This record gives sequence, structure tokens and C-alpha cells, in this order.
Amino acid sequence: MIIMNADATQEQVDQVVKEVEGYGLRASVIKGDYRTVIGLVGDESKIPFDHFAVLPGVREARMVDVPYKLISREYSKLFGGQEHMVVKVGELEIGGEEPIFISGPCAVESKEQIFKIAEGIKKAGAHILRGGIFKPRSSVHSFQGLGAESGEEALDWLREAGRKFEMPIITEVRGETQVDLAAEYADILQIGARNMYNQDLLAAVARKGKPVFYKRSFGAGIEEYLSFSEYIAAEGNKDIILCERGILPVGKGRSYTRYILDIAAVPAIQKETYLPIMVDPSHATGRRDLIFSMSCAAIACGANGLMIEAHSNPAEALVDAQQQITPDELKDVIDACRSINKVVVAERNKKAGSIK
Amino acid sequence: MIIMNADATQEQVDQVVKEVEGYGLRASVIKGDYRTVIGLVGDESKIPFDHFAVLPGVREARMVDVPYKLISREYSKLFGGQEHMVVKVGELEIGGEEPIFISGPCAVESKEQIFKIAEGIKKAGAHILRGGIFKPRSSVHSFQGLGAESGEEALDWLREAGRKFEMPIITEVRGETQVDLAAEYADILQIGARNMYNQDLLAAVARKGKPVFYKRSFGAGIEEYLSFSEYIAAEGNKDIILCERGILPVGKGRSYTRYILDIAAVPAIQKETYLPIMVDPSHATGRRDLIFSMSCAAIACGANGLMIEAHSNPAEALVDAQQQITPDELKDVIDACRSINKVVVAERNKKAGSIK
Amino acid sequence: MIIMNADATQEQVDQVVKEVEGYGLRASVIKGDYRTVIGLVGDESKIPFDHFAVLPGVREARMVDVPYKLISREYSKLFGGQEHMVVKVGELEIGGEEPIFISGPCAVESKEQIFKIAEGIKKAGAHILRGGIFKPRSSVHSFQGLGAESGEEALDWLREAGRKFEMPIITEVRGETQVDLAAEYADILQIGARNMYNQDLLAAVARKGKPVFYKRSFGAGIEEYLSFSEYIAAEGNKDIILCERGILPVGKGRSYTRYILDIAAVPAIQKETYLPIMVDPSHATGRRDLIFSMSCAAIACGANGLMIEAHSNPAEALVDAQQQITPDELKDVIDACRSINKVVVAERNKKAGSIK
Amino acid sequence: MIIMNADATQEQVDQVVKEVEGYGLRASVIKGDYRTVIGLVGDESKIPFDHFAVLPGVREARMVDVPYKLISREYSKLFGGQEHMVVKVGELEIGGEEPIFISGPCAVESKEQIFKIAEGIKKAGAHILRGGIFKPRSSVHSFQGLGAESGEEALDWLREAGRKFEMPIITEVRGETQVDLAAEYADILQIGARNMYNQDLLAAVARKGKPVFYKRSFGAGIEEYLSFSEYIAAEGNKDIILCERGILPVGKGRSYTRYILDIAAVPAIQKETYLPIMVDPSHATGRRDLIFSMSCAAIACGANGLMIEAHSNPAEALVDAQQQITPDELKDVIDACRSINKVVVAERNKKAGSIK
Repeated sequence: MIIMNADATQEQVDQVVKEVEGYGLRASVIKGDYRTVIGLVGDESKIPFDHFAVLPGVREARMVDVPYKLISREYSKLFGGQEHMVVKVGELEIGGEEPIFISGPCAVESKEQIFKIAEGIKKAGAHILRGGIFKPRSSVHSFQGLGAESGEEALDWLREAGRKFEMPIITEVRGETQVDLAAEYADILQIGARNMYNQDLLAAVARKGKPVFYKRSFGAGIEEYLSFSEYIAAEGNKDIILCERGILPVGKGRSYTRYILDIAAVPAIQKETYLPIMVDPSHATGRRDLIFSMSCAAIACGANGLMIEAHSNPAEALVDAQQQITPDELKDVIDACRSINKVVVAERNKKAGSIK
Repeated sequence: MIIMNADATQEQVDQVVKEVEGYGLRASVIKGDYRTVIGLVGDESKIPFDHFAVLPGVREARMVDVPYKLISREYSKLFGGQEHMVVKVGELEIGGEEPIFISGPCAVESKEQIFKIAEGIKKAGAHILRGGIFKPRSSVHSFQGLGAESGEEALDWLREAGRKFEMPIITEVRGETQVDLAAEYADILQIGARNMYNQDLLAAVARKGKPVFYKRSFGAGIEEYLSFSEYIAAEGNKDIILCERGILPVGKGRSYTRYILDIAAVPAIQKETYLPIMVDPSHATGRRDLIFSMSCAAIACGANGLMIEAHSNPAEALVDAQQQITPDELKDVIDACRSINKVVVAERNKKAGSIK
Repeated sequence: MIIMNADATQEQVDQVVKEVEGYGLRASVIKGDYRTVIGLVGDESKIPFDHFAVLPGVREARMVDVPYKLISREYSKLFGGQEHMVVKVGELEIGGEEPIFISGPCAVESKEQIFKIAEGIKKAGAHILRGGIFKPRSSVHSFQGLGAESGEEALDWLREAGRKFEMPIITEVRGETQVDLAAEYADILQIGARNMYNQDLLAAVARKGKPVFYKRSFGAGIEEYLSFSEYIAAEGNKDIILCERGILPVGKGRSYTRYILDIAAVPAIQKETYLPIMVDPSHATGRRDLIFSMSCAAIACGANGLMIEAHSNPAEALVDAQQQITPDELKDVIDACRSINKVVVAERNKKAGSIK
Repeated sequence: MIIMNADATQEQVDQVVKEVEGYGLRASVIKGDYRTVIGLVGDESKIPFDHFAVLPGVREARMVDVPYKLISREYSKLFGGQEHMVVKVGELEIGGEEPIFISGPCAVESKEQIFKIAEGIKKAGAHILRGGIFKPRSSVHSFQGLGAESGEEALDWLREAGRKFEMPIITEVRGETQVDLAAEYADILQIGARNMYNQDLLAAVARKGKPVFYKRSFGAGIEEYLSFSEYIAAEGNKDIILCERGILPVGKGRSYTRYILDIAAVPAIQKETYLPIMVDPSHATGRRDLIFSMSCAAIACGANGLMIEAHSNPAEALVDAQQQITPDELKDVIDACRSINKVVVAERNKKAGSIK
């Protein structure tokens, strides 16, 4: 759609129309009382809107359609495709009726540590084991994970722990040079929030053909997040698990949480795409005392699962102690979430109204 | 606390100490390897931190304590006060085990309209009837509510509807000149998000002695919100019902909701203050199709109630049609919330862990 | 403009068209490959877009035109009106070639104080004297200005100081009950950032017929700011002086300024409206050591003037010491700004290119 | 600094002290009336604040010192180092009295294009030639630069154009796999805003030993930006040129610029670090009609230079047409900036006041 200035001349309108047609689309001109608007009929993705924005007489030029057709639920339905996709990891189904729980330590610290935690979270009811090896950190002076020096060894521990306690494993890939190694060991490859825009990494990870756990950046609107998801889908890999992990707080004075958990993003994203979406209450809040309540909230509004950091002894964790809970506490969370999920599914099914 | 520059001189430190003592506090000087920090012992609220920030050698000066002692849960506990307060409105208890539901139209439009909606929401299970008469609007060219021309008549309809269907009523006071009139009719006086900083209005409303329903601004951190709540409490009125209604979205591309519902604010605020806190999913999202899921989420994480806009015929509403649901849909929401609340209370009580 | 879902039916499109026509506009239907867009021809301000957004099959409904036609430069030009307006205050012209400097203390503290500062800033080259009497403050426990107890006396001092040193005066009106009193004394009435949305106050102040100095809220986009300016213009008062004073910072870690000075708002707003716009570097940064550089920047990009807080002895100021400079420092600022303005005007005039 | 809860026990305080000492620091305990604060004496960077935050009785734990000592101006001065650093690129000095102008097209499109533009900007007065080859883009469906298919060829054109018109060249490195190739050709390596957090890329680029042009992310506070700069400095490369290019807008309604140019970041950063800082008005605003005014503003407040996108025929540019100006227009900008710089340097030098 192209909006003209109120004082745009007929020549200027004609010029825009001509250029639109040059790109193989049809221009539909609407003359308002003062302002002319030009609608575009055809494939908008061919249009360089930036170009049109600088043509004389143009006030605004932008796409009307969604910039993420490959993963769009609306377009999928239109062409007889799925409304909700299930991503399979072995036997597990992410995106089905049951919420899936991913847990484990923020960072793998030692073989004993990861085995102990794996055992604990398995008992607590977790399905997938996580462990950070290549850690994104805010300070070069902090512990950066075992990746740099003994990444392969740590990956091996993680895989062994996963096998022993029968859980697929997931780990974050922080840079392109780590993709091959991580893909050799992990069942799911994670792309962190700070890498949401890293299109080279997205493509490299996608090409491994494994499910991708892809977190939203703390500075991205939903539209932008979904638009970047297309970098993965465009490689032919649609096994994408989205994850809301908090956005930047706004406002004077402390917000009391590290980020703002954008809980409405869960149903809003589910209406835009057929991909499953999880929630990470650990990073979203940065506070272990809010994990329980935020997990309940996420499941209550339909999240397809949770990623929760757990540590046998949070106070001794090398990274993000503040946001890790114990396996016992994790059990409370998972039990509560399952009960809530049961109620929510039942209530949603019996709803009389139209606001599903 | 006052942080000195790394190159501050001893004279500059001494000067700060002297001035601190001049305000009747004691200065505790900590000499670090490079930088000196001065802790303040005594009543920090006496200290003009701005003043200290411009003294030579000072890098930063700020309060360590919370700026909302009157409503602080921590201070209340310290002095043997309550940990959670119940605000009573007639028989109703806001802040107890049961969530309270406030509903009604965005704007009162006619006598028939408010009676019809009141009947509907009562059947749906609502406790309190809302209806906007003095509407804050983004455009002077839009309908501003009946307030300007027939405010008293509309208030009378609202009160009559409340009496007939046995619900206390609440309405928003937009400006100081409306306080007396509104207080004559309403059981609860509402201060809207755009007026969060309006200290004259806060004081004027507080002085009426009726419960105040006080919404967080979309641009306020929690600390700032609670700090402004003190304008109400300082008038001797602690019957304050807080309300999270969404904060400003951040990020390129559409967020797909009008605001961001800061769901973690619910438990975070409950840990900071003894006041009850509700959630308004209607304004937070601006989307009727997200009311159900956001209501479930809010109750799941412990909100003390919900304010939900309802209209017998949303498509005919004069204001905010997009975010109003029907009384039938409201019933679905309330039923689901009650079921969830039961589960959550049970699960929270049986939690083994320490992260309550 | 109304954007339909990709799977909207013909009946749904017809229904929208019918309703559009019911409001007296013409609907122009553009059928895309997958999606239909409906353009509206006629007066969009009659359209309740919220209503259309909930009609079946509708994805999005919004205004294409600007919501501030009364103050729009584009519409003014279209109807032969002014491109730039000069607001006159006595002999002074705000919006002309020369930048106007408003200065004075954050808060009036005593008669001596305001006279001493008035003398200093007059010598420094300031044109208008400011002084806060009704102070908006973040904490009820801080000094709120002399307004509550001796507002009229303080206003009188301010007026006397202005007369003696031949400067018109400006003061902030914080609440509706202060409008009459302030209007009796002040030459310009200021509406602060926290009151940007206070439509009752805007209308009450506007009706006094005096120039209104109207600050942008720290949480408002430019479109919203201009839209609220219409509350003043709609009362028949177009003597509006806009003011950019910083918006909310975003991002982890400290921003090192209290707010973010949105400097691009200056030329952006000048392209949207014919009203003059000033900059307040004092509140925008909260740092006296940035006033000089931010003032230079503001004038360099074409601001019509500056509001700068000055105090004879900043360290003794009761409010906002951190952001006030001395009259001597103000002189440096004004001198530099005048030199820069001369250069900028000359350079702008000789520009060969088209990007004025 | 560690702030305890008001109801923390003596045992809890003792435990914190014991742990602080375990990390080799000294704890300085300040007992307030209600709350105890524990100051840390020694090297704070050894302290895992996350760990302390979860100890019983702790309310808050955080670093008092700056997290960027390697590039800190304050620490540099303390140890007799430089207050302002000049980064040399051949004969050019970035960070000296004269502002440096980097210009060129958003994306290199062809040999003719880059030669033509290089000639134009050289005549306009530019010092350094830019040209994007590996383009970060919001949509996988858009033109991604020549990098993927003919990156080396494009780099060669860029270098040839630079040699012919005697300008060093700069290009953006988007991913780790491009570092070696880009470093072979370019004189300065650019890290874009979306990669600000990409620590693997930062380290890889830094190790090349060439000057690094490092842009601030649109979602980063200044403190965080400088903290990530340490990833470059920690590799022994301090030839870092910082660049402000706009941060995320906040607020309802359109902001009319793509990002918010945080102009106060220029002097604020210059006070924190000895590194030079430039401004990119093209990306910050996304509007060619604001380049002139924003460039003037940036130089007026002391920026060490500008990066401005220029194209011989903006309307034909494949990327970001909306924000590119012509070489003729660039000349106007550079001329104006030089005149302003002269005035500003003179005015700053004659300042009587203390607010430099």
C-alpha cells in the first residue's frame, strides 16, 4: 500500500502506478477527498517499499501482507495445510495436548553436576534435558561456559546424561563455528535471544535438519520475530519451536524482573503461525521465586511447554544462580502445570462463546 | 548511597560526609581499591539525592531503600502489620482467596444498555459493575462518554443498575472537577492509567475515603507505580486496589496486542506490597479473542481479580468494541478462572519447595 | 483502510462495505491474490475503527489519514494556510528565525531567589522567565513546590521579577484547580509531560486564550503527541508551543541520562505541523554537564528555542539540582547557540540538494 | 554492594560476609535503621552477584563499579593513560579535532555503481568509503547483498574504488565465516547493531588487529554497550570506533523515524570512555530528509564523525533507498558540519562555566 501526500500531483500518482506495474503488480488507485492511496495487487514481496517511499509525492509505503508466509497459519489454512504443527523429537510431541518440559542447568559445569541434575529433573517429570556449553554472557570477564576449552567433552557428558535418563538433549549454539559440533551431539539445537537476528547462524543451524529451538529477542516485536523465523523455514526446515523469554522493560523505576514476560505473545503467536511456542520463565524474570507463578500462567494460556532452568544447588551455580530452581521445586511446578492444563483444556472445550 | 568518582579527593569525600551529617544522618565510608562509597545511616527520605549528585567528586547518589514505605509489605511485616490486605466493598472482599470479577461496558451509553449488560454479567458471575462515564480518549474528535452532557444522569443509571442486580459499582474519575459527583454515586472510584501521575487527582480521590481502583501507567516501572500509590496512602486512605493493564510494547514490527500485559507484575507486586492487585486483560491486549487466555493466565499466577469489559453487543459499542466480550463469553471466562483458581490454590498449598 | 483475512468470504466483504456506506463514506474494494483490502473514501474521522475490527473476516482496521488535521502543516498548505506559525508573546516571536530561550529555576523558592536568578538569566540573554510553583514530583514525601501553601504569593514574585527584568513569565499548571490562578499571572501556561494526556486540563488551559507551552509525554509517539495537541486547538487556541523533553530509555544497563532526548523529533514534528517546537535539555538528560552539548545539538537541527533550568546556586536548589546550571553557564550556552544558529541558517539557505 | 531485607537476621548477614571474604574481598557492613547494606572492598569482578542474590535474607546484589574498566576514561586517567584516544587509519585520525566522514552506498551493487559513488563522495569531502557486501536484512526474501555469491569480487571493487579515490574502505562483517575474507580487503571492519551481542564475532574481528567500527544495538543501554566493547578490547585491540545509530522507539502512535537517535549518548559516552564515537543518522532515522539536520546536531554536540549512506541515484538503490542521499546532498551536509564544528570548537574553548 502506498499513501500519497495530500498535495501530490496527478503526475506523481501516475509515476507510482507506472513503477508498480513495472514490478508486475497491478495498482489500484483510491482517490480520497484529499489523499490518494494506491493498493497493490499481486505479490507484494517483489516490491522494494524503500524505493517507493522516496518517490516524489509519497508519504508512506508499506506491505499490507504478513512478511512470514512460509510459517503463516492463515496461509497454511488457505492452502489446506495444518493449523497447528507438532514437532517430533523421538517419541515426544511438541505442540500436542500435553505441555512439554525442558529443564536442566543454565551451564554444564561438570560430569557429576549434569548427571545429578538430569536424574533430579527426570524424577520431577521433565521430558528434555538442557545444558549450556557455549554461554552468551554480558561480560567478557565472566565464566563463558565450558565451550571454549572442553566443548566436546561437555557435549558428551550431556548426551550421556540424556541417554541414561532417557531424555533428548538440547544445547545452545552461540556461533557458526559451533554448529557442526553441537549438531553431532544434540537432538535439538537452540538459538538464543541475542542471536535472533543472526541470519548466518539461523541458516547454518537450519541446514542441520534437526529441530530448532528459536528464542525471541528481547527487542523484537512479534511480527519481526516471525519474519526472522523465515530464515530457518526458507532452508526447508520447519521443525521450529518458538520461545517467548521476555522483552525489554520500559518505564522509570525498577521493574523488579529482568525482562517483561510477554505472556500474550503465546496466544497471539499461535494465531499467526502453526508452529508451537514455549515459554522460558527463568530468563524472562531472572527470579527463582517467580518461576512457579509464571509457569502456571504460561500453561493456563496455552503455551506448548516450558523451558525452566534447574540446578541441584542453585547457590553454587556458576551462571544465573538467581533464576535456577531445584529439581524438587521443579516437580511442584510441573505438577501444578499438569493440573492446570487439564482444567484449561476442559474449560476451553466447553466454551460456549466465540472468543476461542 | 553515594558513589564517588575514582579520582575523587579526600576533601571531596569529607565534604559529602559533612553534608550527610548536616541532614541528621550518619555517613559510613567504604574505601574500595579505587573508588569510595558512602552509605547513609538514618532516614534516607530526608536526603535530597539530586543535591548530592552535583557535589564535586560524586558519580552517583541514590536511595537504597524503597520509596513506598507506607504500603510496603516488608515494612508492614517488620512492624507487626499485615502481609496481605483485604479491601472490603460491602460484603465483598478483594484480596481474599476468591478472585473478584469486575465487569460492564467500556462506556455507559444509555439506561437500557447498562441495565441489560448488568443483568448479563450478574448471571455470568461478576461481582462488581463498571461503566465509563468520563472517558479518556486519544482523539478529541471521538465520543468522550456521557460525562460532559449528562454525567449525573448516567451515574444514576449505573447506580440503579447496580442496586437492581446487587452489585457495587465503579466508575473512572478523569479529572478533579468530577470527583465530588462521582463519589456521590460510586462505591469504588477508579483512576485510569493516563492519570497515574496526576497527584492532584490522586489526593482528591483519596480524600473521599472510598476504595480507590488505581491503574498502573503504561509507561511506569513497578517501583514508580508503587511510589505514586503513596499519594493515596498519604491521605490516610489505604483501601487501594492496584491494577496491571499493560505497558508499552518495545520492538520493531507489530506486537499484535495494544499493550504488553506484564503478568509477572502480579506476583512481583504482591511481594512488595500488602495491597491487592487485579488485572485488566481488555485494555492490556485490546483484543477480545485474547481475553479468555489472558484471564486464565492472570488467575493462574495469583491475581486477586479481573476487570473485564463486556457489552451485550460489542459490535455496536461506541468505544473500544475491539476489546469487549459478551456476557455469555464472560461466563466462560469466569467459570474457567474459578476452576483454575481452585487448582492453583491447592497446588500452591501442597508445594514442597521453597519458591512460593 | 480495512484489511480482510485471507479466508474472508464474499459475504464478509459485502458486510464491511455496507457498514462503511452506512457511515456516509464510499468503500473501494481491492481484491489481492489472497487478501482483500477495503479503502475508505470520505471523512475517516467518522469511522469507529474499533467497530470494524470486530466484524467477521476483518484482520485489521485503521485510519490512513493523520489524526491531527487542525494543526497539520500538510492540510494547512492544502488550504492556503501557513507552513510555519509564529506564536507571539508580547514582542517576542516564537517560531521565527531567532531561537528563543526560556530559563529560570525548576522551582520558585523565595522572592530573593527568583529575583536573583531572573537578573542572572536576563544578563545571560534569556527571553522568558520560568519558575515552577506547582511541582509534579515522583514522591509524595518530597518538596512539592510553594503552590499548596503560598501559590499566589509565589506567582506574584515571579510576575514582579519578570516585570523588573522585562521578561514574560511561564509557569506550569499541574491540575485543573490551578488554572484560573495561574492564568491571572502568567503570560504562558505550561502543561507538563505527565499531563500530556490530561484532556480536561488541556481544555481548561486552552480556554484561557493564552499561549500554551505543551510538553510531550516521555511515553508518547509523535503521532499521539500531535493528536492530543488537538485538544488544545479544538478549543480555538492555536497558540501552542510544542516541547520535546525526552522519552523513556530502553535497553539493559544504565543509559546515563534520565530520559532519551529524541532530537529527530524536532525536524520530524516541523514537517508534520506548523507549530513551533522547543527542546528542554534539562529534563531530557537530567545532567547539567550535558546541557551545553544538547543545546547546541537542538539549535543545530532547527529547534525554535530552548527551555533550560538555571539556578544561582544549583547545589542549594530544592528540586532537580542535578539538572540546573548557573546563569554564567547559561550565557555560554546561549552564546554558542546563537553562533550555531547563524551558521545553520546560512548553510541551510545555500543548500544545493533537495533534502531540506 | 549487597542490600539485605529489612527482616534479615544477623546470621544471614554473617553468612554473606563470610562468603564475600571467601572470594578474597573485604565486606564492610553498614547497619541502617532497618536495613543492612554490605559494601565490597576489592576486585568486584571476582564476585558472582547472581550467587549472592539467592542467599537467604538478600534483597539485591550488584556491582558498584563500571563493567568496562579496559576502555574506561576514568580508570585510564587514574593510571595516567589517555583521556581521548585517536584511532589512526592510514593518515586519518578518528577522534581528533576534525570530524571524519564515512560515506558510500548501503550495498555495493556493481563495479560502476561503487566507482561512481566513490568519486562523488570524495568530491563532497568524505574521508572513508563504505559499501555493504554482507547485508543484514529483516526478510530472507529480500536482497542480501552480493556477499553470498560474489563477495570477494565486490570487496575487490570496493578496494579498487577506495584506492582510486584515495579513501580507506570499511565494510560490515555479518558472520564469523566472513571475517578472514573481509579483513584481507578492508581497512576498517564494521560490526553492525544486530551483532552487538555476538561475542564470537567480536573476538574474531578484534583478533584481525584492524580498527573495528562497532555499532550500538538498538536495544542496548550505554552501560551494556560499553560492557560488550570489552570483548574487543580484551583481545588486545583497542582501536575501536563506537557508533550511535538509533535505539528502539517507545510510545503509542508513529514516531516518524525508524529508530530514535540517542544524541545525548555522544557526550555521555565520551565522558565514560576514551574511545571516539561517531553517529549514523541514516539508520537512526531511516529518512533522507532528516540527514542534514541530524548531522548538524551530531557535530554540534561533539561527535567525532558521521557515517552517512550515499547513492548516486537513491531511487534505484536495492537496499534502504529511503535513507540514502546523493553525493551533492552529502556535500551540503559536510560543508555545514565543518562550519558548525568550527563554531562549536571555538565556543567550547571560550566557555567560562564549569559544565564542559
